[in-house]
Amino acid sequence: MSASKKKMAVLGATGVVGQRLVAALADHPWFELSAVTGSERSAGVSYGQAVKWMLKEKIPENAASMIVQATAPDGIEASVALSALDAPVAMKAERAFRSAGFTVVSNASAHRLDPEVPLIVPEINAGHLELAARQRSRYGGAIVTNPNCSAIGLCLAMAPLRALGVRSLRVTTLQALSGAGYPGVASLDVADNVLPYIAGEEEKLESEPLKVFGDIKSSGVVNARFTVSAQCNRVAVMDGHLLCLSVETERPFSEADCSALFRSYVSPLGGLGLPAAPERPVIFREEADRPQPRLDRDACSGMAVTVGRTRKTPAGDLRFVALVHNTVRGAAGGTLLIAELMRAKRLL
Amino acid sequence: MSASKKKMAVLGATGVVGQRLVAALADHPWFELSAVTGSERSAGVSYGQAVKWMLKEKIPENAASMIVQATAPDGIEASVALSALDAPVAMKAERAFRSAGFTVVSNASAHRLDPEVPLIVPEINAGHLELAARQRSRYGGAIVTNPNCSAIGLCLAMAPLRALGVRSLRVTTLQALSGAGYPGVASLDVADNVLPYIAGEEEKLESEPLKVFGDIKSSGVVNARFTVSAQCNRVAVMDGHLLCLSVETERPFSEADCSALFRSYVSPLGGLGLPAAPERPVIFREEADRPQPRLDRDACSGMAVTVGRTRKTPAGDLRFVALVHNTVRGAAGGTLLIAELMRAKRLL
Amino acid sequence: MSASKKKMAVLGATGVVGQRLVAALADHPWFELSAVTGSERSAGVSYGQAVKWMLKEKIPENAASMIVQATAPDGIEASVALSALDAPVAMKAERAFRSAGFTVVSNASAHRLDPEVPLIVPEINAGHLELAARQRSRYGGAIVTNPNCSAIGLCLAMAPLRALGVRSLRVTTLQALSGAGYPGVASLDVADNVLPYIAGEEEKLESEPLKVFGDIKSSGVVNARFTVSAQCNRVAVMDGHLLCLSVETERPFSEADCSALFRSYVSPLGGLGLPAAPERPVIFREEADRPQPRLDRDACSGMAVTVGRTRKTPAGDLRFVALVHNTVRGAAGGTLLIAELMRAKRLL
Amino acid sequence: MSASKKKMAVLGATGVVGQRLVAALADHPWFELSAVTGSERSAGVSYGQAVKWMLKEKIPENAASMIVQATAPDGIEASVALSALDAPVAMKAERAFRSAGFTVVSNASAHRLDPEVPLIVPEINAGHLELAARQRSRYGGAIVTNPNCSAIGLCLAMAPLRALGVRSLRVTTLQALSGAGYPGVASLDVADNVLPYIAGEEEKLESEPLKVFGDIKSSGVVNARFTVSAQCNRVAVMDGHLLCLSVETERPFSEADCSALFRSYVSPLGGLGLPAAPERPVIFREEADRPQPRLDRDACSGMAVTVGRTRKTPAGDLRFVALVHNTVRGAAGGTLLIAELMRAKRLL
Repeated sequence: MSASKKKMAVLGATGVVGQRLVAALADHPWFELSAVTGSERSAGVSYGQAVKWMLKEKIPENAASMIVQATAPDGIEASVALSALDAPVAMKAERAFRSAGFTVVSNASAHRLDPEVPLIVPEINAGHLELAARQRSRYGGAIVTNPNCSAIGLCLAMAPLRALGVRSLRVTTLQALSGAGYPGVASLDVADNVLPYIAGEEEKLESEPLKVFGDIKSSGVVNARFTVSAQCNRVAVMDGHLLCLSVETERPFSEADCSALFRSYVSPLGGLGLPAAPERPVIFREEADRPQPRLDRDACSGMAVTVGRTRKTPAGDLRFVALVHNTVRGAAGGTLLIAELMRAKRLL
Repeated sequence: MSASKKKMAVLGATGVVGQRLVAALADHPWFELSAVTGSERSAGVSYGQAVKWMLKEKIPENAASMIVQATAPDGIEASVALSALDAPVAMKAERAFRSAGFTVVSNASAHRLDPEVPLIVPEINAGHLELAARQRSRYGGAIVTNPNCSAIGLCLAMAPLRALGVRSLRVTTLQALSGAGYPGVASLDVADNVLPYIAGEEEKLESEPLKVFGDIKSSGVVNARFTVSAQCNRVAVMDGHLLCLSVETERPFSEADCSALFRSYVSPLGGLGLPAAPERPVIFREEADRPQPRLDRDACSGMAVTVGRTRKTPAGDLRFVALVHNTVRGAAGGTLLIAELMRAKRLL
Repeated sequence: MSASKKKMAVLGATGVVGQRLVAALADHPWFELSAVTGSERSAGVSYGQAVKWMLKEKIPENAASMIVQATAPDGIEASVALSALDAPVAMKAERAFRSAGFTVVSNASAHRLDPEVPLIVPEINAGHLELAARQRSRYGGAIVTNPNCSAIGLCLAMAPLRALGVRSLRVTTLQALSGAGYPGVASLDVADNVLPYIAGEEEKLESEPLKVFGDIKSSGVVNARFTVSAQCNRVAVMDGHLLCLSVETERPFSEADCSALFRSYVSPLGGLGLPAAPERPVIFREEADRPQPRLDRDACSGMAVTVGRTRKTPAGDLRFVALVHNTVRGAAGGTLLIAELMRAKRLL
Repeated sequence: MSASKKKMAVLGATGVVGQRLVAALADHPWFELSAVTGSERSAGVSYGQAVKWMLKEKIPENAASMIVQATAPDGIEASVALSALDAPVAMKAERAFRSAGFTVVSNASAHRLDPEVPLIVPEINAGHLELAARQRSRYGGAIVTNPNCSAIGLCLAMAPLRALGVRSLRVTTLQALSGAGYPGVASLDVADNVLPYIAGEEEKLESEPLKVFGDIKSSGVVNARFTVSAQCNRVAVMDGHLLCLSVETERPFSEADCSALFRSYVSPLGGLGLPAAPERPVIFREEADRPQPRLDRDACSGMAVTVGRTRKTPAGDLRFVALVHNTVRGAAGGTLLIAELMRAKRLL
């Protein structure tokens, strides 16, 4: 990389994902934080005052003293923006930044299924970044998106299994409280309870993986042809989404085959030296009772997905369980990794 | 029913399920508690002293003063035994009671898959009780079994859907702490966590429903021909197992069809006047976020299963969610209901 | 009581305490619900539509079809109002009802320390209702208040100990989530955590008991002369506030004395036949590990306080632990009991 | 320090505290692990096999391959033993090690109140180590003890306040699950609940601080003359004991005085360069709602106590709240810090 650090703005910096982005940029070897944006209520005051800081590590000093700017491209001293905006705000704001020449790497759902916009899991479909170049020639800038937190876990967990030919995929999720933001879920709703519904989540899980595993063509991304069906639950866990999967495959397999595929999987990003990339993005646990959210969510600093409990069922499906840290790999960390990938490929 | 109450022994009366059976018999209109058995450690002392009483309602006075007997047929003043024994103890002990002429209605797993022994959900396969008569002519007594707590929930939830022709069934469970007995799950294991494994549970869910929905023939029960695959998780909920189901059917259906099947389902036991039988064994909730363990587990005093979230998925499956109170309908209440059914049919 | 039921309005009927009042009036032998009021947003629609019903029991049918009225005396068909208003609203609204001739029995904190207004725990200071008569001659109506949920528990728990001469009282509370209303405490704040602060709560605990135990004089209530110091915590429990008390007394005592005082305490309301009054308002548990919120909160349908763990400390204090169901005895049930007391004394 | 590392045995190495000691020694600059002991069941197998490893960090490789030895001095290659034994085992075993010339630094309660044995909080009573020298001349070795987990928190939190002259101290604790070891508290006991009793805990809190703050004389330690009274509760928190204190002082004070004492407190160990010593052993938080277990337990890697919510009460007491990480500063970390102090003072 070049000696000087690339300047980055964080859009929607006061929310939980925004905070994690700000924290991650504090001592990043390639990037530096140059601007933070927020809602009208926050704009004009210092970030330290505007934010209800939720992370264990302290708020970075240089960030704390920055003045929060409105979420608009004027006066933002950067050409790259990491977006942690809410979807309704993101829809317009990210386009405005794109038109102003920014490259926006976004965790928001607003543009994920836009045919012009790539939806990236770096280990899986780095080639889809070609869409960013096409946007740039059309708009002057580009929007690149990070999938939904559960969808990233599902995609990474499926990556080693592509050799089997996935035909269909049923997933039931047990999702953590932090996925709902703050204040999010009321304690009275989840105490001694499970909520069997998360608005909009099943639709995302049923659509986003098809794009991630799709093929890039001159006309855009052609979705992968398997189907996904999802049932999403909220459980009383702080962090870490657990996914219970059932996979129908094209090709026959044994339990041992699957375990071997998981064990032997290595990151295709190995040669790029991306600071946030885990050496092993998929960790296979042999124990009968893993992965568990509390024990496995921080694997590789939260950037790896942990899988286990592989079984071949009476119906011939592959059953297994996967865990993803929803606010790290599933949000801020995934977004940052895309930015690193783009920097390494000289797309930023 | 006859004017005098039928005497009942409770085997394994000191455990949580045993306690619920003792409590249920305290003011039962047809039955009365006449004996309690326990381990060697408990035998010879009063039940009140031997038991660590876990229920909210007080320990029934007549039970408290009974002397706990060893778990053997000698000296037990009853001809019917409700068994809450642990599986390893049940294997021998229930046979001993059967040989001594007792009818044993058991919640233990030991004999559930024994071809001579019926596995009963009263609303579904009362006809399988024919196997009890066959045992009686061979052994002098009989063993009748109640399915696993999650399996009961699954079977009842599937009952209204038989018209669709079930081909395969995938289920992911979120099971309550009380299912593991006491002391059961360590708090350190489940705090801020999910355990994605319950020993032996998936095997039960994958086999027992096939027998429940099987056909009784002269040779015994012929299993139903669908497949079940299960992934079982333990979550930090006191009571109430949640089941997330995905069903492939023989016949095409719409979401509205399924909801209608659930709504219109009525108990085939209606005419029998069984005291513990719920009028509606399957309750359909229209809300997007139901069933929930804390809100729905006590429906019909814990004897009904609540279902909701019916959806047709992109793969054409039926997705829905079901909830069963694991220690009531899924254990003591289910066992008692079988005894009531047998009494009403003059099999006790 | 007279044959016809007394009509009652519930002010602030859509909140959790309001819901409990509505439910309690549904089949009350002396009272009947005649009106419900709510915020401007709710006024004009049916109660069934306006309310997010949180209780296990179903919403009473007659209540569900009532049209929510604005919280003002005009057009309210009743002369008694049970108030579950928030404090800021209550300050003005309850006075308006009083001026219009209503007797307002209120759970709100707004007027609790008003020298004209009695603050009542029926078992302790029924005589303070004299203040209601004085208000009535001045304003045409009256406001009568129910103490804070923790303060009620503290007062009832102290009632049997008055013979010892209380000099000072230190209390640390572990308060339930339902005390904060809905949505109340964010699940992320209380998961794997304790919040050592509840705004305004310590002040209430340090002042209200002095008034409850005060003497009624012609000039008003003269506060009791002991001191209270409080530290209030929020813990991850659904219902039931636990109070850990340390009491300095005027007179010497032994542990056995205290236990005996608790055991022998009986309600002074015995002769009045109040429907909601517990026969034993203070239940003493002998076990080393009681009271516990989940096991003891529903004692006497939530209307009794449970105490235990009496100890004399090295400093000569009396230590003990008390539990009160915060939304029953500590709120709706306490309010209703005051209304019943007033009805029995022909003050309504 | 000398160039070569001091060899250390860990007694009772398979329990949770033992594991933390093993982990802490893995990369300690002054010490190295040379032996691990366990129960007869564990002895003879490798530590990696014998232990159910509970920590997030991996088991150190050199420890994993060590053969677990019986808990007896023969054949232990070390002259210092860190003890995480259970109290009943510790009583005899630690004396055997002492007689064999070992210095035993123990987290067990067995010898804490033994007049010959010092009970050390390094920041408070390092001078009491004089007792170790006296033991050595009598027995050839010495036992030095670390207080109970809550007592350490209480002592450190009180250290800055000594200038006020403490007369009496009332404390109510909200203690974490990990304090009970593994499997420890049953999840059914603590779900939606608080346990108001921890066997033996109140006695420790009421006695140990008096020894820690006592004066060393030629006859031994003369206890401090204040009194402590304690009420101990178990709450559903993983780690971190919260203490709610009420302090009567000899000298008058204002709230500001107390906050200033906390803010200005610095460790008296500053000059010694102890690796585990926190720079600020007491951290004062200004926010109204701190300390909180989840947010503050890891302050200074779990070695500092966090205090807050200072208030002067109507009775003139000082109220405040303190938090200690019970398995770090309150157990393994505290034990290790004593060993470091002794090494720095050339007592090891």
